[in-house]
Amino acid sequence: MAFQAKKLINDPNDVVTEYIEGLVETYPGLQYLDGFPEIKVVLRADVSSSTYDKVAVISGGGSGHEPYAAGFVGEGMLTAAICGDVFTSPPVDSILAGIRAVTGPMGCLLIVMNYTGDRFNFGLAAEQAKSEGYKIEMVIVGDDCALPPRRGIVGRRGLAGTILVHKVAGAAAAGGLSLADVAAEAKRASEMVGTMGVALSVCTLPGQVTSDRLGPGKIELGLGIHGEPGAAVADLQPVDVVVTHVLNQILSSETQYVPITRGCRVVLMINGLGGTPIMELMIASGKAVPKLQLEHGLAVDRVYTGSFMTSLDMAGFSMSIMKADKKILQHLDAPTKAPYWPVGVDGDRPPAKIPVPIPPSRLTKSDEVLSRPQELNRQGFILEAAIEAAANAVISLRDNLNGWDSKVGDGDCGSTMFRGATAILEDMKKYYPLNDAAETVNEIGSSMRKVMGGTSGIIYDIFCKAAYTKLKESSSSLMTAKQWADALEASIAAVSKYGGASAGYRTLLDALIPASKVLQEQRLNAGDDSITAFVLSSEAAQNGAESTIHMQAQAGRSSYVPVEILASVPDPGAMAAAAWYRAAALAVKQKLQAS
Amino acid sequence: MAFQAKKLINDPNDVVTEYIEGLVETYPGLQYLDGFPEIKVVLRADVSSSTYDKVAVISGGGSGHEPYAAGFVGEGMLTAAICGDVFTSPPVDSILAGIRAVTGPMGCLLIVMNYTGDRFNFGLAAEQAKSEGYKIEMVIVGDDCALPPRRGIVGRRGLAGTILVHKVAGAAAAGGLSLADVAAEAKRASEMVGTMGVALSVCTLPGQVTSDRLGPGKIELGLGIHGEPGAAVADLQPVDVVVTHVLNQILSSETQYVPITRGCRVVLMINGLGGTPIMELMIASGKAVPKLQLEHGLAVDRVYTGSFMTSLDMAGFSMSIMKADKKILQHLDAPTKAPYWPVGVDGDRPPAKIPVPIPPSRLTKSDEVLSRPQELNRQGFILEAAIEAAANAVISLRDNLNGWDSKVGDGDCGSTMFRGATAILEDMKKYYPLNDAAETVNEIGSSMRKVMGGTSGIIYDIFCKAAYTKLKESSSSLMTAKQWADALEASIAAVSKYGGASAGYRTLLDALIPASKVLQEQRLNAGDDSITAFVLSSEAAQNGAESTIHMQAQAGRSSYVPVEILASVPDPGAMAAAAWYRAAALAVKQKLQAS
Repeated sequence: MAFQAKKLINDPNDVVTEYIEGLVETYPGLQYLDGFPEIKVVLRADVSSSTYDKVAVISGGGSGHEPYAAGFVGEGMLTAAICGDVFTSPPVDSILAGIRAVTGPMGCLLIVMNYTGDRFNFGLAAEQAKSEGYKIEMVIVGDDCALPPRRGIVGRRGLAGTILVHKVAGAAAAGGLSLADVAAEAKRASEMVGTMGVALSVCTLPGQVTSDRLGPGKIELGLGIHGEPGAAVADLQPVDVVVTHVLNQILSSETQYVPITRGCRVVLMINGLGGTPIMELMIASGKAVPKLQLEHGLAVDRVYTGSFMTSLDMAGFSMSIMKADKKILQHLDAPTKAPYWPVGVDGDRPPAKIPVPIPPSRLTKSDEVLSRPQELNRQGFILEAAIEAAANAVISLRDNLNGWDSKVGDGDCGSTMFRGATAILEDMKKYYPLNDAAETVNEIGSSMRKVMGGTSGIIYDIFCKAAYTKLKESSSSLMTAKQWADALEASIAAVSKYGGASAGYRTLLDALIPASKVLQEQRLNAGDDSITAFVLSSEAAQNGAESTIHMQAQAGRSSYVPVEILASVPDPGAMAAAAWYRAAALAVKQKLQAS
Repeated sequence: MAFQAKKLINDPNDVVTEYIEGLVETYPGLQYLDGFPEIKVVLRADVSSSTYDKVAVISGGGSGHEPYAAGFVGEGMLTAAICGDVFTSPPVDSILAGIRAVTGPMGCLLIVMNYTGDRFNFGLAAEQAKSEGYKIEMVIVGDDCALPPRRGIVGRRGLAGTILVHKVAGAAAAGGLSLADVAAEAKRASEMVGTMGVALSVCTLPGQVTSDRLGPGKIELGLGIHGEPGAAVADLQPVDVVVTHVLNQILSSETQYVPITRGCRVVLMINGLGGTPIMELMIASGKAVPKLQLEHGLAVDRVYTGSFMTSLDMAGFSMSIMKADKKILQHLDAPTKAPYWPVGVDGDRPPAKIPVPIPPSRLTKSDEVLSRPQELNRQGFILEAAIEAAANAVISLRDNLNGWDSKVGDGDCGSTMFRGATAILEDMKKYYPLNDAAETVNEIGSSMRKVMGGTSGIIYDIFCKAAYTKLKESSSSLMTAKQWADALEASIAAVSKYGGASAGYRTLLDALIPASKVLQEQRLNAGDDSITAFVLSSEAAQNGAESTIHMQAQAGRSSYVPVEILASVPDPGAMAAAAWYRAAALAVKQKLQAS
């Protein structure tokens, strides 16, 4: 099961130079030295060694850790980044070229992660640059807390905590400090930070085969950023447990890797290793902060969550904890133009976030409004009759609707509409405020959505809600025919807008649009003329619904139904709409004439 | 081969609420509504509906696309984001709560991606909010260019281009425009943008099994952000080819999805789908820009590269192209506090970036300097004798050094030092400028690094470079004994600093540190006293090297060697250093006495 990893690259040998080309295409403030493929140096486009009057801050190392280090080049952070090949220390000449390109009379600080190759190559470049008259200092960062203390030369590995050191040094340099002072601040920061990583997978080098070293259900604690073995392989646990373990390890009083004790202020960095979605990183942050506060007695002043120092496509994250004081926070908060330094994290955090209370509806309906009136007024009486007739029309059409729908859809249109109509009849008895037409229409929508589910329930609720809003524009609770017509028009507009359908799509609109058209063409006033117009419009609705039998495949769903089938049945949704509309119109006419 | 995907989460049902908790822990400017788990709304911490005097801009949809949409909440972009469960449209009550929480008298624009559930749920919430008296507009974004035009309701899917619409709308709202104007700008932007995605893998929902729908060596073109099938599955190609295809598809004159023709100005967004490292995204950007310029005749005004709208852990990217004009660029460039809007991209890009020329060394050595002098002065004569003696001492020690090293290392110390010494003898004859002691020392380092390779070559080069810099401090080319002693001290400091070793680590320093100590304790002047001091110091070097036999496992490499073996051999590096140092001191003494 060893496959060559799938990567969106060209020649695996060109990944670093092509990455740099994309980076400078993306960020106008970045540039690179003309020395590909050997010399891969990204630098600030606005800095030239001949004029630069601040301390230059340079870092880098092997590539494959993007956005580290080139993504942190920018005013207030790194002046240049030296990129090696993937997981390979950059050559001395490349480092020297970077130093020469950005170092002015104030000198240059090299921030180097504690790997033998980097120490020596940056070291030799530093000595060479010194021999050319440059002022150079170097700070080595080894923040790994995963492995037990090792005797001898090797020391602790450099990990994502290095980026916090970059920021501190970059801000100190931007503030105009001398080389000695910038180096001192960087060194101090490097001694304040500890990091530990956790991986779900090892990374795959471009053009190589994916390792299955970590099988299903396993994680590795303390894995290095080049896939070096970690402290232990363990069973995958909930991230809660993983976070607890990592924090305990970093803050261990046994190793005393970081000078952090209860009562300290700290900043936290959760760093994705390349293949981990932001969702998972944020879940880890959300768990880590209260643990640091409550279990470790620390004040968490800043949280940086993102993918800052990756290992190609490795899944997992590292956590870094840095002891914070006023000076360090000032440097971390200082503005920078480095593209990948997180924004929106500066400034003091509240000790705990209390979520915002849910705001109430502006409509505070009294119980009185939402109850069936003791006595119906004339409008309420007619409205009740119309609703009853409309609901019963739909109920009696159930089997027909299901039959049509079984040919063009999932066969449940009749049953769904039946549920809605039944609920309306029941709810109306219980609490529809029938003397208030607008509120009653609103409740019809709620009844339907409650029981119908899916899109048809929501469509009818939208339909009713839009009518309600239109009707509410009236100051009186007695509605004119014109207001009813306008409400219908508003409902159609809303359903069309949110649902995306218009005339000819085989939906309820194919019944209602013709009806609305008839109404709008009439001059509607109170009285018999108007009710005649409504009855006429209901005939238009019926005709419209029946004519859907000729409409071919306009609608999204129906577009998968063969044309010959579409030509055999009308649209069930349109037929249902025509039925209730027509029943309501006729019921209103009958009541008006009877009264 | 179907495994449950490894994810760093807790209960799969809690991923969205826990994500939101981490997000607001990270960003002080963000807050959430107190309605978990049903209501998942992220909003600006500084906005309250009662006081907000701008148009609110709200977006959202199903989760699993982080940082979309909550990561784009902030002044100048979204006022609130409504989060559904993973890949599930948020419920109407949740949307309503968000609207109520941030909408002031200027009203609210809802930006909704074209998915049925989102359209209806946001639509119903909009109608409900209207009925409560809120001013609401809605703009639906469907920017997918992967599938052929579809008739009917469904339309084109909303993809990452939506984020550019967010930015345009957010900037318009921040600028104080009316709701109608903000909506008009958003709508216009939505009609200017087209997007297409490419995936190497489908995503895995939390708690579910990973699909192997895309086998090894396959990619899917036009995959939806929920893993919906795309236009085609194809063999994995170099990303160059993939980029060409995607750009052609978006800009197709057949579909005419975007109103972009030759000569237009555009902005480009390369969006990672969750599991794709920045390196690969940047490679795609770097290829896309020149293709747009040269093959499509477009001016590329801005490039946004990053992971903005993901599909959980899907590997792949989408590309979005938006037609740009002055107004759109102004809106895209306008400041925002949204944490995930890319920084450093604003402002005009140069039409093409010319890389910065590599700066020259400050040391421009003439050929004359780097050549063996016609005639040696007294110092040059003695220096030549010292170098020759030192090199020969190392050469004659080859087998001993290899023997010792075979017990504690890889057995090649003698051979490596032999190569260095031989090269020195050869190069000295050819071009060492022996009358200039500093330059000669510098060349010794270069000769050794050139042929020795690995860390020992670089250590000796650092050693010589540091000595060179120290010797160069003298204005005269004639060196005093004190200057030689100080140079040795500087060399030791550099090797110790960059290599990490100090006394007792079984390295060359165990010979040289005692020697340097003897020298520094003497008052060095010219004359016999000084050469006596050098000879004494060389005895100290020899004693120091021999005493390494008692040093146990301090050094990194040697720490893996059993103690009983370390107790049987001295350190070969220290013995070599003692040998050449002693040979040089004795040679100098002899020459001085003979002259």
